[in-house]
Amino acid sequence: MSDSETDYYHVDGTLLPAAEATVNVRDRGFVYGDAVFERLRVYGGEPFEWAAHVDRLERSAARLGFDEALPPRDDLHDRVTETLEANDLSEASVRLSVSRGVQDGELTPEPRVDPTITVVVDELPRGGTDGERAWDEPATLRTVETRRPPEEALPSAVKTHSYLTGVLARLELPEDADEALVRSMEGHVTGGAGSNLFLVHNGTLYTPTANLPLLPGVTRGVVLDIADGESFPVETGRYNRTDVREADELFLTNSTWEVRPVTEIDGYEKPVGPLTKLCGRLFDRRVENAHY
Amino acid sequence: MSDSETDYYHVDGTLLPAAEATVNVRDRGFVYGDAVFERLRVYGGEPFEWAAHVDRLERSAARLGFDEALPPRDDLHDRVTETLEANDLSEASVRLSVSRGVQDGELTPEPRVDPTITVVVDELPRGGTDGERAWDEPATLRTVETRRPPEEALPSAVKTHSYLTGVLARLELPEDADEALVRSMEGHVTGGAGSNLFLVHNGTLYTPTANLPLLPGVTRGVVLDIADGESFPVETGRYNRTDVREADELFLTNSTWEVRPVTEIDGYEKPVGPLTKLCGRLFDRRVENAHY
Repeated sequence: MSDSETDYYHVDGTLLPAAEATVNVRDRGFVYGDAVFERLRVYGGEPFEWAAHVDRLERSAARLGFDEALPPRDDLHDRVTETLEANDLSEASVRLSVSRGVQDGELTPEPRVDPTITVVVDELPRGGTDGERAWDEPATLRTVETRRPPEEALPSAVKTHSYLTGVLARLELPEDADEALVRSMEGHVTGGAGSNLFLVHNGTLYTPTANLPLLPGVTRGVVLDIADGESFPVETGRYNRTDVREADELFLTNSTWEVRPVTEIDGYEKPVGPLTKLCGRLFDRRVENAHY
Repeated sequence: MSDSETDYYHVDGTLLPAAEATVNVRDRGFVYGDAVFERLRVYGGEPFEWAAHVDRLERSAARLGFDEALPPRDDLHDRVTETLEANDLSEASVRLSVSRGVQDGELTPEPRVDPTITVVVDELPRGGTDGERAWDEPATLRTVETRRPPEEALPSAVKTHSYLTGVLARLELPEDADEALVRSMEGHVTGGAGSNLFLVHNGTLYTPTANLPLLPGVTRGVVLDIADGESFPVETGRYNRTDVREADELFLTNSTWEVRPVTEIDGYEKPVGPLTKLCGRLFDRRVENAHY
């Protein structure tokens, strides 16, 4: 964040100084977590994997029944770009959020939706091959007791403001851990509280299947695409905590961390291994080619 | 709501016209549903069952690890009272909410909490024996596919802004249904999306046990207390959809509806039966004795 100057955020079509960027206390995004969002990375002034993010935003809103209230993609893109320009940022993390807005009734949503659309930006280091990371050190991972809600209770592929499970998982962490290893009710590893997990074992890349209750991140998709292009052996499936502890290498992905190695899981140390490093470099090259 | 005049809401110690009553777009209550709340009923200017509500608010905040940031109970009570006075309301529904506030970091909560405390009020008809109801008709109930999250994924006795499961359950309802019958993952009936359920069978009152993933409401507690005082036969336990459909009488409880009879469940008609009526009358008397 550019602490020295005023930040500007976008709220319902207007750029406002951060302190004045607000939503009504009756907004359903606040009251019921009834809103969808995307966190995306900006490199060289351009949102990375914009299409994948806006696809998911639309799918999320569709699951909540208010996709028709979303403005066209170009309009959303403009709001992001305007916010970046107002803050003079070309390397950033963006949170684009669309809530069901303020409605008259109580819990039951009204069919007519006047959405609340917000864009919040934070400065991040430049990505790509010459860039710095948004993290200082590899990650320390700790298995927590909080479990991912089953699909029938909260649809997992939908990114919403009802994010408390992730908060509770992170609250379990001791001070020296960066990410929570979260499992499904059945004990399968789903990933981090705010990231996807990859395991490397005997040269093969493994990641929990999207059939588990997890959010298949855009960065996870890019890594799988890179692996496919390079003909790395890849498997998606169901893994337990022992599989994670016994992996040769581990890394986490999300749009802020990109490819972040894990060097400790529940006290078991892991090296930053060759396939992790290679995936990181290939990811950087993808960023570089797209945006610089 | 008093549509004719400006409403006033309480935000962080200040009374503001409704349109200006806002929270920051970075407030964790908005971004992650990281906030706790109570909806309570005001009769004759006094919050009904205040102690039970504020107890639960504190327990909810404790589960989220920010109970130390809560102001004293008297302070919270003052905010409610000031909001009622500003709107010249003595019969009302109040939503008192405490969020973890704005923080610098991302998903992981910071230990230092500056909470955002909001009070929103709506006018409701006068309760008690001479009062009207907040509902026009008995309720129509429909079983939905959305399930309550298991305890390990979202603690059920904690009332938070991550309320999307309730929204999704209500979204499944056809236009002529008022409340969703929500089940646990195992198929046990937990209650409505925003209410607790009571069944009457052969003169005994049944309600799903709080060992199931449900929020044991304050009004549910009052009804159980009334039943105990009157020596009605009462059982808490695990019931399935068939038990509900085959009940002699059904009613729902919450602080807005008080005791609301159910006259249809999934196409099966139910009478407004004698025990339901009696519970409603005894609840009214409790209100009357406490506040008028």
